[in-house]
Amino acid sequence: MKRTERRSDCPINFALETFGDTWSLLVIRDLMFQNKHTYTDFLKAEECIATNILAHRLRRLEKSGLIRRRGAGRGAAYALTEKGLDLLPLVAEMIIWSAKYDRRTAADPDFVARLRTDRRGMLAGLRANLRRTHGLAGPGRRM
Amino acid sequence: MKRTERRSDCPINFALETFGDTWSLLVIRDLMFQNKHTYTDFLKAEECIATNILAHRLRRLEKSGLIRRRGAGRGAAYALTEKGLDLLPLVAEMIIWSAKYDRRTAADPDFVARLRTDRRGMLAGLRANLRRTHGLAGPGRRM
Repeated sequence: MKRTERRSDCPINFALETFGDTWSLLVIRDLMFQNKHTYTDFLKAEECIATNILAHRLRRLEKSGLIRRRGAGRGAAYALTEKGLDLLPLVAEMIIWSAKYDRRTAADPDFVARLRTDRRGMLAGLRANLRRTHGLAGPGRRM
Repeated sequence: MKRTERRSDCPINFALETFGDTWSLLVIRDLMFQNKHTYTDFLKAEECIATNILAHRLRRLEKSGLIRRRGAGRGAAYALTEKGLDLLPLVAEMIIWSAKYDRRTAADPDFVARLRTDRRGMLAGLRANLRRTHGLAGPGRRM
């Protein structure tokens, strides 16, 4: 995303210009569900992200305020910001959709069933846990 | 996405491999909210999609079963399939997130407020309308 000008003010477009590529949300996933926090952790993802793509996406996610970094270089540790954590409902919808349409999905059926039947409760629980593990103080603003 | 092998069975990855680029969901948006149905309609989007990218994305979305085509060439008309319509909750979450974080958002505040306070009712209403306009019979399966 080399553009300095945004393509439009459409909310779908804003989201796509911020994290609309095939890799960024995999980093967000690793932070949300895999307890991964470092460059080396993210490199180990099953999807085999290339080092240069990973470095670029981490810089872009940090610049967009979705993640924050502590430390520098390969020892840096990343955490979700409030803005990154607020992607949880969207990521949950991706899981539900893929679980429905991908016959080979690795999605946990219990997790998906609970998301479907108690979406609000599940998201609140996940969010509270993530707030703790990502060092976000307080209960946060309601979306 | 030239790969024939998928990168993993992760549900987030499945979604990203299906529509994870900066353009595909703009076509879905145009079908969902702009009452646009043809190649020429999509070309007119504010984001100025290039003709070759649009043609490629339409082929990919059709191949993935998110949209279906009636007719051929530039007169072809596209509609959402069940699988494409099931992206509605995900697209709704994108709108909510962008409305919160983009100061210049063009998102309609009333629409966003109603999505937040009556998510289920809003989505059910939108879905019913879209089923009608996209020629999908019956009430559909629950997600």
